Amino acid sequence: MDMQDILRRVQEGSLDPAEAEVQLKGYEEKGYAKIDHARRGRQGFPEVIFGENKTTEQLKGIVDSLVAHEENVLITRLDDDKAAELTAARPFLTYDPVSRLAAYQQRPFAQKEGYVAVVCAGTSDLPVAEEAAQTLDAFGVPVRRIYDVGVAGLHRLLDHVEEIRGADVTVTVAGMEGALTSVVGGLVDHPVIAVPTSVGYGAHFNGLAPLLSMLNSCASGVSVVNIDNGFGGAYSAAVIYRAIREEHHAK
Amino acid sequence: MDMQDILRRVQEGSLDPAEAEVQLKGYEEKGYAKIDHARRGRQGFPEVIFGENKTTEQLKGIVDSLVAHEENVLITRLDDDKAAELTAARPFLTYDPVSRLAAYQQRPFAQKEGYVAVVCAGTSDLPVAEEAAQTLDAFGVPVRRIYDVGVAGLHRLLDHVEEIRGADVTVTVAGMEGALTSVVGGLVDHPVIAVPTSVGYGAHFNGLAPLLSMLNSCASGVSVVNIDNGFGGAYSAAVIYRAIREEHHAK
Amino acid sequence: MDMQDILRRVQEGSLDPAEAEVQLKGYEEKGYAKIDHARRGRQGFPEVIFGENKTTEQLKGIVDSLVAHEENVLITRLDDDKAAELTAARPFLTYDPVSRLAAYQQRPFAQKEGYVAVVCAGTSDLPVAEEAAQTLDAFGVPVRRIYDVGVAGLHRLLDHVEEIRGADVTVTVAGMEGALTSVVGGLVDHPVIAVPTSVGYGAHFNGLAPLLSMLNSCASGVSVVNIDNGFGGAYSAAVIYRAIREEHHAK
Amino acid sequence: MDMQDILRRVQEGSLDPAEAEVQLKGYEEKGYAKIDHARRGRQGFPEVIFGENKTTEQLKGIVDSLVAHEENVLITRLDDDKAAELTAARPFLTYDPVSRLAAYQQRPFAQKEGYVAVVCAGTSDLPVAEEAAQTLDAFGVPVRRIYDVGVAGLHRLLDHVEEIRGADVTVTVAGMEGALTSVVGGLVDHPVIAVPTSVGYGAHFNGLAPLLSMLNSCASGVSVVNIDNGFGGAYSAAVIYRAIREEHHAK
Amino acid sequence: MDMQDILRRVQEGSLDPAEAEVQLKGYEEKGYAKIDHARRGRQGFPEVIFGENKTTEQLKGIVDSLVAHEENVLITRLDDDKAAELTAARPFLTYDPVSRLAAYQQRPFAQKEGYVAVVCAGTSDLPVAEEAAQTLDAFGVPVRRIYDVGVAGLHRLLDHVEEIRGADVTVTVAGMEGALTSVVGGLVDHPVIAVPTSVGYGAHFNGLAPLLSMLNSCASGVSVVNIDNGFGGAYSAAVIYRAIREEHHAK
Amino acid sequence: MDMQDILRRVQEGSLDPAEAEVQLKGYEEKGYAKIDHARRGRQGFPEVIFGENKTTEQLKGIVDSLVAHEENVLITRLDDDKAAELTAARPFLTYDPVSRLAAYQQRPFAQKEGYVAVVCAGTSDLPVAEEAAQTLDAFGVPVRRIYDVGVAGLHRLLDHVEEIRGADVTVTVAGMEGALTSVVGGLVDHPVIAVPTSVGYGAHFNGLAPLLSMLNSCASGVSVVNIDNGFGGAYSAAVIYRAIREEHHAK
Amino acid sequence: MDMQDILRRVQEGSLDPAEAEVQLKGYEEKGYAKIDHARRGRQGFPEVIFGENKTTEQLKGIVDSLVAHEENVLITRLDDDKAAELTAARPFLTYDPVSRLAAYQQRPFAQKEGYVAVVCAGTSDLPVAEEAAQTLDAFGVPVRRIYDVGVAGLHRLLDHVEEIRGADVTVTVAGMEGALTSVVGGLVDHPVIAVPTSVGYGAHFNGLAPLLSMLNSCASGVSVVNIDNGFGGAYSAAVIYRAIREEHHAK
Amino acid sequence: MDMQDILRRVQEGSLDPAEAEVQLKGYEEKGYAKIDHARRGRQGFPEVIFGENKTTEQLKGIVDSLVAHEENVLITRLDDDKAAELTAARPFLTYDPVSRLAAYQQRPFAQKEGYVAVVCAGTSDLPVAEEAAQTLDAFGVPVRRIYDVGVAGLHRLLDHVEEIRGADVTVTVAGMEGALTSVVGGLVDHPVIAVPTSVGYGAHFNGLAPLLSMLNSCASGVSVVNIDNGFGGAYSAAVIYRAIREEHHAK
Repeated sequence: MDMQDILRRVQEGSLDPAEAEVQLKGYEEKGYAKIDHARRGRQGFPEVIFGENKTTEQLKGIVDSLVAHEENVLITRLDDDKAAELTAARPFLTYDPVSRLAAYQQRPFAQKEGYVAVVCAGTSDLPVAEEAAQTLDAFGVPVRRIYDVGVAGLHRLLDHVEEIRGADVTVTVAGMEGALTSVVGGLVDHPVIAVPTSVGYGAHFNGLAPLLSMLNSCASGVSVVNIDNGFGGAYSAAVIYRAIREEHHAK
Repeated sequence: MDMQDILRRVQEGSLDPAEAEVQLKGYEEKGYAKIDHARRGRQGFPEVIFGENKTTEQLKGIVDSLVAHEENVLITRLDDDKAAELTAARPFLTYDPVSRLAAYQQRPFAQKEGYVAVVCAGTSDLPVAEEAAQTLDAFGVPVRRIYDVGVAGLHRLLDHVEEIRGADVTVTVAGMEGALTSVVGGLVDHPVIAVPTSVGYGAHFNGLAPLLSMLNSCASGVSVVNIDNGFGGAYSAAVIYRAIREEHHAK
Repeated sequence: MDMQDILRRVQEGSLDPAEAEVQLKGYEEKGYAKIDHARRGRQGFPEVIFGENKTTEQLKGIVDSLVAHEENVLITRLDDDKAAELTAARPFLTYDPVSRLAAYQQRPFAQKEGYVAVVCAGTSDLPVAEEAAQTLDAFGVPVRRIYDVGVAGLHRLLDHVEEIRGADVTVTVAGMEGALTSVVGGLVDHPVIAVPTSVGYGAHFNGLAPLLSMLNSCASGVSVVNIDNGFGGAYSAAVIYRAIREEHHAK
Repeated sequence: MDMQDILRRVQEGSLDPAEAEVQLKGYEEKGYAKIDHARRGRQGFPEVIFGENKTTEQLKGIVDSLVAHEENVLITRLDDDKAAELTAARPFLTYDPVSRLAAYQQRPFAQKEGYVAVVCAGTSDLPVAEEAAQTLDAFGVPVRRIYDVGVAGLHRLLDHVEEIRGADVTVTVAGMEGALTSVVGGLVDHPVIAVPTSVGYGAHFNGLAPLLSMLNSCASGVSVVNIDNGFGGAYSAAVIYRAIREEHHAK
Repeated sequence: MDMQDILRRVQEGSLDPAEAEVQLKGYEEKGYAKIDHARRGRQGFPEVIFGENKTTEQLKGIVDSLVAHEENVLITRLDDDKAAELTAARPFLTYDPVSRLAAYQQRPFAQKEGYVAVVCAGTSDLPVAEEAAQTLDAFGVPVRRIYDVGVAGLHRLLDHVEEIRGADVTVTVAGMEGALTSVVGGLVDHPVIAVPTSVGYGAHFNGLAPLLSMLNSCASGVSVVNIDNGFGGAYSAAVIYRAIREEHHAK
Repeated sequence: MDMQDILRRVQEGSLDPAEAEVQLKGYEEKGYAKIDHARRGRQGFPEVIFGENKTTEQLKGIVDSLVAHEENVLITRLDDDKAAELTAARPFLTYDPVSRLAAYQQRPFAQKEGYVAVVCAGTSDLPVAEEAAQTLDAFGVPVRRIYDVGVAGLHRLLDHVEEIRGADVTVTVAGMEGALTSVVGGLVDHPVIAVPTSVGYGAHFNGLAPLLSMLNSCASGVSVVNIDNGFGGAYSAAVIYRAIREEHHAK
Repeated sequence: MDMQDILRRVQEGSLDPAEAEVQLKGYEEKGYAKIDHARRGRQGFPEVIFGENKTTEQLKGIVDSLVAHEENVLITRLDDDKAAELTAARPFLTYDPVSRLAAYQQRPFAQKEGYVAVVCAGTSDLPVAEEAAQTLDAFGVPVRRIYDVGVAGLHRLLDHVEEIRGADVTVTVAGMEGALTSVVGGLVDHPVIAVPTSVGYGAHFNGLAPLLSMLNSCASGVSVVNIDNGFGGAYSAAVIYRAIREEHHAK
Repeated sequence: MDMQDILRRVQEGSLDPAEAEVQLKGYEEKGYAKIDHARRGRQGFPEVIFGENKTTEQLKGIVDSLVAHEENVLITRLDDDKAAELTAARPFLTYDPVSRLAAYQQRPFAQKEGYVAVVCAGTSDLPVAEEAAQTLDAFGVPVRRIYDVGVAGLHRLLDHVEEIRGADVTVTVAGMEGALTSVVGGLVDHPVIAVPTSVGYGAHFNGLAPLLSMLNSCASGVSVVNIDNGFGGAYSAAVIYRAIREEHHAK
């Protein structure tokens, strides 16, 4: 909607001045937050809420603002206690304790071709892998989960090579030494987004070991996001997936 | 070529047994190296030679093997002295001292649509930015260079926003604190590959500062490669570019 | 008061010998602490109490000593439990759980010109930003709060550029990659004090990422205080503000 | 000059279109650099050239552009070899090998009141202290140098306390453990900018020891710049000095 | 007692064979521990028990063994819960919750000349300073406590210089940036043992800042022990004190 | 069993198709895990379960699968709460709270010659030493425990030199500075596997100190596993022990 | 030779007193060094000379002492300049510039069964791999070299699995992210000694990346030596090889 | 000399006013340095010159000033080139290239009892050990050198235990893993000063490994100085030695 339209609708009384301000500025001022309603126009996906370090009151306010603007809602890193309070107050939200994501799908997605493969090394990496997979779900991107295929039992991985090769993008999720990324990276010809996890102990230094490992991968075509950042890995994969499967059909 | 074809041609005398071995194995054994001639089939681009820590003799051997198999040649991280020796011995190679790349374009590229934007923060980041841009050139990917647009003079960057937004993929190259990546990441809806550089001093710790900065970027859709790894950033961008512009038209 | 005055008043009986010792020495000996009553004379602001690692009994003793000497009281890093005990015992103290500051304004402040801008990147940075803003309040320095203007949504920041430019000093508070500091630093011509926060995870290393980012800022005129040190950022800003607005009118 | 003026002068032929473009954009496009001629308007000081990682040709181009726009020139971190080439080609530049600064004072400075104290701990810190002091010279800010007053011989420092207290701003420069900053910080009531140096060995880790020391200073009112960043410390001091002594007289 | 004596006493029945084994070996075998009863003969002080990571049962066993051999008992790093259990079971032990030391003085000490000064920077450093001071008490070394004399209020320290100078050895205990050590080290001509504490936050990295600071002290004659190791600082001081005041009178 | 056998047994109805799939693939698919039943054939020992980050339900599923395939069960890093739940549900498991191992010995071991020495420095290292020793027990390898022989009381170690020298392999377990490894490494002619522990504080950095110490050991023949990785040290020792005592008798 | 023999031979004049002292003490005193002639008796291999930081004169003295005692000589980390001087003076030494080893085989080796596999990831790792392989040569241990089999081209590694599986011990040598170790570790049932190399750049931190990767390997049976320590990896492998193939036949 | 004496001598013309200023202030102002002539009075030893980062001209000036005041001269960390220039200009200085010390003994020392033991682990540690030993020589403290007694050949160390036990103070100098310090620390009852050296490679991190090792030593009575700080270790030892042998006889 352009500025003249907005102003005319205010003049006509069909648009509330407070809402008009949001549309003109591109964000809603909440004091503790400026909710970025221009995000989807600018970046293709609506603003996602980082749940850590926010109070339940703040979360409710941001959720309400997104719902009022007909956006889908996705909250990451939400602990169980805040989730209980929040879903009691806003029962349309669904919460998954493994991935610690809360979501509300307000806008339906069309059926789509292709898929993103989420490949993880061990059972302990599941929370991060699920954060990635469910973020893709929330963005309407088809996902295939290929779990517990760490390189110590290479046959388990090799059994799934064709499924991984068939993906548009692969997200690898691995703790320990993160070698899975290099092996996968050497076997495929599509982009690989690597997510190191903090699963390990001692000289793992909470994820530093696989982070360095992935940044130094001998396989090309691999790029890396922050430790335990399943959401970020999924977001990058979704942007690439969309570029391949959607936008450019229209270009 | 399948195994029966190879074996029949050896039987007929039209294929040298040594070459047949390379084709059956997928690599050529050189003692000090196993040259991976299956790379392009498996990953979409031929093997690229990492020039550091290799002797001129080793480089010649690997170049000759690639040329004999009709591959393009790209050598990264080649210092001036070895480059002088190597280009004297193999004059078809061209060498650029800024990016420290040597290349030989044996297979011509078709004209292509779209482009990758290589955006760098300061003049000092040029060697890494050029490593990225010329790698894309060597892979036949269209590039636009947008240089010296660090955020300390934000108007310089804002002047180029439309050109950056028009790209299929952006590679950001920045030293110092690497803030360029976050600002660009917040302005575009396509994938951003971030390359931290070792340009800085003191508490920069040879690139650690922008590496951490980029891994923690508040903008979504950003993934990161190793410090000074212009080649790696370009490679990831090329894989994504190709997925958007080429392969999937055929799927 | 000079030494002769003090001694004469002791002689006259109008000054208690214990208090005279404090005035002569410049501090009060408490065994566990030496309370620095010469601080305001020497540094312009009274001693501020670091609340961490002190017992409630020690805090009471130091508060009483400051109150007895007619100083304002400011306690930082006070956790909720100790705050409850302390404000029950000394009800003139007010406590804010967000900033974890307790304060008692015994000496009124004159109305003043100009202001310090406290600019923060995200809602999660609020506790540190409020520690800064309320410290300035406690020192009688005018403050403007500009919150949640991280660079991932640059339009939110650009909307407030004029307000930031109008300040005498700006305190930037940011976690994640801390890029806000460089963008603000490049837009203003007054001093910028940067406060990195520990908000982030993984390769954030509890604030190391924005700390390094800010120390390497490509914008000039930026100096940095410790991670999460909202108090320290405010103190530096207050010293500069006072130099601009107060003392030197008198020089 | 506003846009209408510029365009009218182009129409009249009194302004070259290339120069008009620089004035409209605020920077001059050099391919390898975008020279920021709006810097002084925006930040109060003209762009300063970081000499490291730039070729002599690039430096000449940038110097010429600044000179043509009647700006003062300051180049930091210029090594002896490039300095020799550059001053031979542009003899108006003066070069100091201790501070590694080259400068050209094109615009004269008025006489000014007050001063900045540059205080350094040891003889080995001189290069960084001089980078700070000569940067202040180049910005027309009065300086007093107080050198070799490290705390191991406290009487040397205490002898200069009054001179330090009289400053508007103090820049402390120290390697080793950097304790000088805390002692000075506890004795003055004006802003202190701390510059850690890389002078030390072993567990000094090239300046990490005094950097951490200064960030954790028990004295308030201290903020910190990067290791060996004498220029940055001076720049922050100059901004504060100017705010105290110049601009606000006019507000 | 030499071997022949021990064996003869076993033969005579005046020495239990189990005890004889302890005396011959120099330690008592407990399975989970080998209690070193030769320690005092070899090192001048009896074995001290590190309380962390030991169960109450193990502590009782070791205490009983020391008591049976007429040694004084000192337990460090004992948390409140274990202390409660242990002192209930072995009521001759006294426990101090600030220093977390438990002790039992079985062998009386003679009156001694001279003293060790324990000097600490802030009230928050008290637990470590008391660990040092009470360890010296337990070893029968005279101590003077000089607390809260951090360099941010230099007059508080300068008031106590003569008392510090009069010591045989000084133990400095400081967190934050640890500058106290350098200032004290520059003022005295006797050995200084520096104990960094973990008091601080952010870029303090749990004591790394003062540890590096003290290792890089510009004052000579300073040596350093581990972070928070009040016991270790006191032990080194006690060894030096004893060498000065006791043994060598006899040499 | 080869593929034809498996398929024939399915045809005959004597093998369940689900089990046949496991045998053909070499692992059992559980969704959250792929249990590697080919591990013993490939690596000589059955899969060991890493208990951390797995739910009790997941553990039960994996235990049941191993038991059904007649493997011994070993679970590492099992905390007390999960152990209580798990042993209640699967009472054949035994749990040791010191080493945090749960085990079930389904296949008996033959009596064997030789032994592995597990040597630890202090009582506080017992949990890691017992993890090593009991892992060797679970693999049927003879063990001798030599505990609390840290080098501060060298006579305690020297008393046990002959017993250590008689071993086939030694596992050294040490926290603090880890010097035990170098002293033992210099006294024996068989392989030494070093396990650093996180026992220490301050500049110990949770095991970094002994890890670096062991990697830099001046004694040859020492190799190192991760901090606190008693299991890993034991596994390496078991592989070496088996090679010496078992397999090669048959080669 | 026992003490009585030595003393009798001195008495008879058949043994030089200086040499007798060496035999009684087990080392030869050179002032700058104490050459450990008891090493082979105690550890199974003679003392190896670490060439770095020693002068040519010191090296000559130590070589002569070993030769005089009929030991084989092996010098590691010898740079080209010192090697030229040393081999000119002691022409029986052979020098290899790739591995930087100098050796003199004075005692012949018997033919042996079995072998150690030295497996390296890339051509750049050759110097470290050759240091390992030639150390094994110098100790008379059969070696097979399997080079340039990094996991980015997995087929190159899989082609050599049987040869690696046939070894008694494998030494893996890898820089970059070191993933080769985990893949090999998961495929074999014998001991694996991992040697990280400093080959890499940026966030490789001179070998830290593969070091952490190998310490956190998801494959069991792997232990690790210091970065670039090809000698140390070979030494550990030789000790294990000897235990399997030699000594225990005699036990 | 007290102030009245100095002033009277100036009045009489028997004292030069410039020299009188030095005596009153306690230091000589050189612009680039303030030479601390009060050091010996305050700390017991004259100022020692740190040679690194000083020009030859600066060194000459400081040497002349010390000589003029009849002090002994000691310069540390002097490289060969500057040493050649300096000793040519000031031929009374002697220079030792191993320890990199230059010295001039102007004041003779009395014969003394007792000694400091300097114990080093390997031949490569000699430069640091000699820096320590020759610093003690320069301070007139008797020294015994016990070199190359690293713990990998424990018998070499045990042969010298009595000589080490007889010392007043021991300085241990060790690179690699620094285990020598713990073993020596456990064997003696006098103070041990530990000097880690940067001798090592890979995960040695230029001395970090032995530094951490020594800070975490399981032996009590050990304190530590900076990496490669042979001078600092010797200085601390000299202060302790003097306290034991000299001053307190007079107290």
